[in-house]
Amino acid sequence: MASRTLPPTIEWRDGDLLLLDQTRLPHEIVVENIADVQAVWRAIRELRVRGAPAIGVAAAYGLCIAMRASTALPIAQFRAELVRHAEYLETARPTAVNLSWGVRRMLRHSRDIDASDAATLYAALVDEATRIHEEDRALCEGIGEYGMPLITEGCGVLTHCNAGALATTGLGTATAPIYAAHRAGIAFRVYADETRPLLQGARLTAFELQQAGVDVTLIIDSAAASIMSQGLVDVVIVGTDRVAANGDFANKIGTLGLAIAAHHYGIPFYVACPSSTLDLQTPGGARIEIEERNAEEVTHLAGRRIAPEAMKARNPAFDVTPHALVSGFITERGIVRAPFERSLRSLFAAEGNAA
Amino acid sequence: MASRTLPPTIEWRDGDLLLLDQTRLPHEIVVENIADVQAVWRAIRELRVRGAPAIGVAAAYGLCIAMRASTALPIAQFRAELVRHAEYLETARPTAVNLSWGVRRMLRHSRDIDASDAATLYAALVDEATRIHEEDRALCEGIGEYGMPLITEGCGVLTHCNAGALATTGLGTATAPIYAAHRAGIAFRVYADETRPLLQGARLTAFELQQAGVDVTLIIDSAAASIMSQGLVDVVIVGTDRVAANGDFANKIGTLGLAIAAHHYGIPFYVACPSSTLDLQTPGGARIEIEERNAEEVTHLAGRRIAPEAMKARNPAFDVTPHALVSGFITERGIVRAPFERSLRSLFAAEGNAA
Repeated sequence: MASRTLPPTIEWRDGDLLLLDQTRLPHEIVVENIADVQAVWRAIRELRVRGAPAIGVAAAYGLCIAMRASTALPIAQFRAELVRHAEYLETARPTAVNLSWGVRRMLRHSRDIDASDAATLYAALVDEATRIHEEDRALCEGIGEYGMPLITEGCGVLTHCNAGALATTGLGTATAPIYAAHRAGIAFRVYADETRPLLQGARLTAFELQQAGVDVTLIIDSAAASIMSQGLVDVVIVGTDRVAANGDFANKIGTLGLAIAAHHYGIPFYVACPSSTLDLQTPGGARIEIEERNAEEVTHLAGRRIAPEAMKARNPAFDVTPHALVSGFITERGIVRAPFERSLRSLFAAEGNAA
Repeated sequence: MASRTLPPTIEWRDGDLLLLDQTRLPHEIVVENIADVQAVWRAIRELRVRGAPAIGVAAAYGLCIAMRASTALPIAQFRAELVRHAEYLETARPTAVNLSWGVRRMLRHSRDIDASDAATLYAALVDEATRIHEEDRALCEGIGEYGMPLITEGCGVLTHCNAGALATTGLGTATAPIYAAHRAGIAFRVYADETRPLLQGARLTAFELQQAGVDVTLIIDSAAASIMSQGLVDVVIVGTDRVAANGDFANKIGTLGLAIAAHHYGIPFYVACPSSTLDLQTPGGARIEIEERNAEEVTHLAGRRIAPEAMKARNPAFDVTPHALVSGFITERGIVRAPFERSLRSLFAAEGNAA
């Protein structure tokens, strides 16, 4: 992570797994040395490690932690333990796609390894986890490299929520072009939306950019249009949770309003995402289901009630932005532009991944 | 106020001035019996009474409170005291236009009254304050009457900040059509933006509508576009602090983004305001100065820091919405529509008020 003082989101150091506790940011910087598989499970469950890519990496290393005291076991018993711990780890956040992805990739690799002893298999597992970690870093670097030309000297960049370094083990997704441009010595401003209701923009994005020495200004979500109207924003870059085949995409609530305002002012609007976020099985945004979260996230803040008692509230966690408002998707393989139906499909085809 | 359980914002009862303490809403409903002119000054200063129209009415009654123990004084001395208290009261919030407006109207009236004793002049002052109060109520009723047809059975209304009954002594401005429609038995839904940073939407608008039995749902500001995209909003009604000659208008930060989103979805967007809000001296929005408030309103909430330390933040209190995004201004004399340059000027001319 392009940071001056923040420790890495995830670090594997001499057989130890170190996780930056994200629930305590920005008030405290605490790195936890993960003792055992239960501690990995809790860290994932309690969002101390969060963000799809970071969860995948944590799960892979987590399985190594689960097995590190078992290298003296007979190989068959080691393999049985591995499967048991993998099943347990997957229960930490059943809906986190990258959690099961990371765990299953580790299991698949273990089956591919024809080891005669547990120590050898353990070493192979650590290698694979390190590879997953490296791939995540490389993917962020790729997004950073392709997105960097969008950020020019003196320009203003607006982002929403946290698709930042803290959600990955590298430069982040939406933040990757920002860190890459900053690293290249380009001087520019970032506006970070605070991102109600959970304030990931204030707590995480503004924080990690500030720590990295990027010129970042925090604004309330509803000030974005005003900041745009003053000519202060030259490009909007956001992340995404899922991109449909036609280029409609889901992201944190508030993204749609930003996209509409950017369109109104003719400001380029980009979505940064690994190509794995593309979901060709979903034809368009109308088929993306939107999670409605607890109304208390709106009526309360940090446990304190900020709205009247018994107030009815709606709390959609995401919104869907139609592809017509998107200038392009910044992926690790390049920027994908309209017509998206075709360009997104070719991106997939290149991967030999089309269903 | 069209309320089931909320006391009036301001009440004059048998020579006593009763103010609903708005700083304690929605957690506590406290009515203060104002003892003397110092107590009026503090209530205005500390925002216990707020909203331009309500401040004007409170100031007028406040002068009565200031003088009520002086009716045995010689008339000349009574008049001198009145001027002294008026000057003092105006210092409570020097930038509140309605405060000095209310005070000066009372002074002007006192000069017009040829009373031979203090008790007679005092009675005339109470009459004038009551008239100011009545005019405010009538003005809200007018806005309610003209705006009501915009709200039809089963429709969804979205509003922002608090241009509500609590800001006036009647039905409010943006809320006047809502209360009028509710009173008429029309069934409809209201979405109230919480309105960061100071949450007037959550604390005041959602609260007063809930108390009045209106079907109100609280949303975070950045969910508005998503709610609109789902077809749940049929009309947006907001208030305003100042309308320029061309129809550009200033209102609480977030209004501009709402107007852009409403325009994008073809949803009618109305601004409710007394005709006194029109400022023909200001040709257009570019000439409206925007107050930048303390960054701590963004980085802190109720005294608690929610952003990283030393975080730079911008906090424009208002934004300016261009007239092209406005469907009409709902005033106490009717709905004013484009071309606004002309229609707003005729509204003024009708008043014999054009500069």
